[in-house]
Amino acid sequence: MTVGFSLLGRDGEARRGLLETAHGGVDTPAFMPVGTAGTVKAMLPASVAATGAQIVLGNTYHLMLRPGAERVGRLGGLHRFMNWPGPILTDSGGFQVMSLSKLRRIDPDGVTFQSHIDGSTQRLTPQSSIEIQHQLGADVTMSFDECTPFPATHAEAAASMRLSMRWAARGKTAFAARAGYGLFGIVQGGVYEDLRLESARALTDIAFDGYAIGGLAVGEGQDVMFHVLDATVPALPADRPRYLMGVGRPADIVGAVRRGIDLFDCVMPTRAGRTAQAFTWRGELNLRNARHRDDPRPISEGCACPACTGHSRAYLHHLIRSDEILGAMLLTWHNLQFYQDVMRGLRGAIAAQSLADWCAGFDEQQAMGDIAAV
Amino acid sequence: MTVGFSLLGRDGEARRGLLETAHGGVDTPAFMPVGTAGTVKAMLPASVAATGAQIVLGNTYHLMLRPGAERVGRLGGLHRFMNWPGPILTDSGGFQVMSLSKLRRIDPDGVTFQSHIDGSTQRLTPQSSIEIQHQLGADVTMSFDECTPFPATHAEAAASMRLSMRWAARGKTAFAARAGYGLFGIVQGGVYEDLRLESARALTDIAFDGYAIGGLAVGEGQDVMFHVLDATVPALPADRPRYLMGVGRPADIVGAVRRGIDLFDCVMPTRAGRTAQAFTWRGELNLRNARHRDDPRPISEGCACPACTGHSRAYLHHLIRSDEILGAMLLTWHNLQFYQDVMRGLRGAIAAQSLADWCAGFDEQQAMGDIAAV
Repeated sequence: MTVGFSLLGRDGEARRGLLETAHGGVDTPAFMPVGTAGTVKAMLPASVAATGAQIVLGNTYHLMLRPGAERVGRLGGLHRFMNWPGPILTDSGGFQVMSLSKLRRIDPDGVTFQSHIDGSTQRLTPQSSIEIQHQLGADVTMSFDECTPFPATHAEAAASMRLSMRWAARGKTAFAARAGYGLFGIVQGGVYEDLRLESARALTDIAFDGYAIGGLAVGEGQDVMFHVLDATVPALPADRPRYLMGVGRPADIVGAVRRGIDLFDCVMPTRAGRTAQAFTWRGELNLRNARHRDDPRPISEGCACPACTGHSRAYLHHLIRSDEILGAMLLTWHNLQFYQDVMRGLRGAIAAQSLADWCAGFDEQQAMGDIAAV
Repeated sequence: MTVGFSLLGRDGEARRGLLETAHGGVDTPAFMPVGTAGTVKAMLPASVAATGAQIVLGNTYHLMLRPGAERVGRLGGLHRFMNWPGPILTDSGGFQVMSLSKLRRIDPDGVTFQSHIDGSTQRLTPQSSIEIQHQLGADVTMSFDECTPFPATHAEAAASMRLSMRWAARGKTAFAARAGYGLFGIVQGGVYEDLRLESARALTDIAFDGYAIGGLAVGEGQDVMFHVLDATVPALPADRPRYLMGVGRPADIVGAVRRGIDLFDCVMPTRAGRTAQAFTWRGELNLRNARHRDDPRPISEGCACPACTGHSRAYLHHLIRSDEILGAMLLTWHNLQFYQDVMRGLRGAIAAQSLADWCAGFDEQQAMGDIAAV
């Protein structure tokens, strides 16, 4: 019953592990590309897999509104719908209700809101979110929580977190346990250490299959985020996976892995890929910049993605200036490849007990910048 | 010297052949996907090749304006720039000058026009078009011609065609003959049989490596187009490839192959793929239509493209309704696959001397429509 999680090694607080689901295993630390509306934007599923990604994230909010979770269920579930045979984690919809919907009204039992697509009135509750994720066929289901606004006072963050904890308990009751499928709880509490610990205790008492840390990377800054992780992670059960939601830039991920996080998701690599940004070991490049227009070099020497093996920066610059879809396709692929390469590097360094050195090298390279640029 | 062309078989007027260029061979009859600005829109080059396409078309007009032919030349030519190792045919820019540019002024020596991108003043002449195509590295270079407006009187079409013939002669002089590279002339003359024959004679006297038929599929209708082909094709040298420019829908291509055409290009499959249209053996589907939203079937059973092997019509409908890039990617791939499958079918039928039967079956299926639709 539930998803399996084996710890394969440690280096300091960092862990190597294997998450086992009904649709296969995931080597951790892992980065999950975001497949918002049933597609990792601008990528064929086979291309996502080719980058090394083993699990993708689906969005309950988007899919319930369009095409509808019942429809996805009738069509065989999200795996078949989007042709992704591997594991899928779905979020609960809580974050998007807060960030995308209109006329939100929160009550003790859930949230009523207007669809950002057609203005229709919709409702999500701790129970209905679980039910929708079940219809989608998620390997990992997330508890429905209230996304605490940032900034929030201690009293606001406390009230929001305690509501989410009551909802977490209801979601646990609603979740139908099945072998290979799991339910994760989400630690809230804003930037307040005491609230984060209270939340971690509450969730541990309920007993989830994994523990997420929510409400970070919302503007608090990397230092504060790492401080919250330093305080929170030790309060989570060591034998269960830990997932930092919505994070982040490569350096955020590296720092969080060092603090014991196993799973990540973020729109950063895909969204950046559609806005001419490329992530590299030497920092970020904006391919729209005119300095690339005659540059025959690839984005990154040694990168296995088709943007780097097949094309110059000059060509990518041309595609972007010409608003060609292929520009978004190639940069998205590159960024997802880079994120997976970072995760592979982290896993290898943990296995080799050389994480500190690896991270020092990573930071040094990132700081160096693209000094060889034309 | 020049491109090779071997006739491998005939069935009536239809021909099987092999076009040999500096970058490889092309089995004819062949359809060339259009790579306007150095990219077959929404397709990786490897995916274009995976459909069976052996040659793509590049647009002189687009590439001279952005990123500039000299730049493409400095970066190693169009093959390297777009990472297409196979043969490339470039058009001369004449058609796009007429259809896209502003403030055109035609004189006996060329055309002065304003770029549709930045308003800059540009000029193309029979000689400079050849030079630009040389900078791009085209395997097949097209003569620069005036695109005769439609409709045009006999006198207008005659004057336009004769100007193009004078330009064709200048282009031939400007073209540097090299082994594996060829220059094609373009028959003009509008819908007038006598002018088409005069044009064919003029080009044959100059002696080109292949002969294109231009100025069709501009609104004259399929019957008129086929009539022009019936009149013109017999006047072209049998031992050289024949290229019908900018054509067309599958039924146009099938009819033109029966009339002895060897090469085709058209934006139809790629443009349709970005506007929710799918071509199939049973006619066309508009995937935006609500009737597809619960349909678990692929676009076409038996099609090898990733849209058909991996996804339902319901999923494609969802992608289109959600404005997802993947929708354009999958439908473009499908349409290019279908066009290549049609060409493969035609080549097989000519080889088997069964073209009439194959075409009867094709027409019957197309007329049948998607009767099994939900």
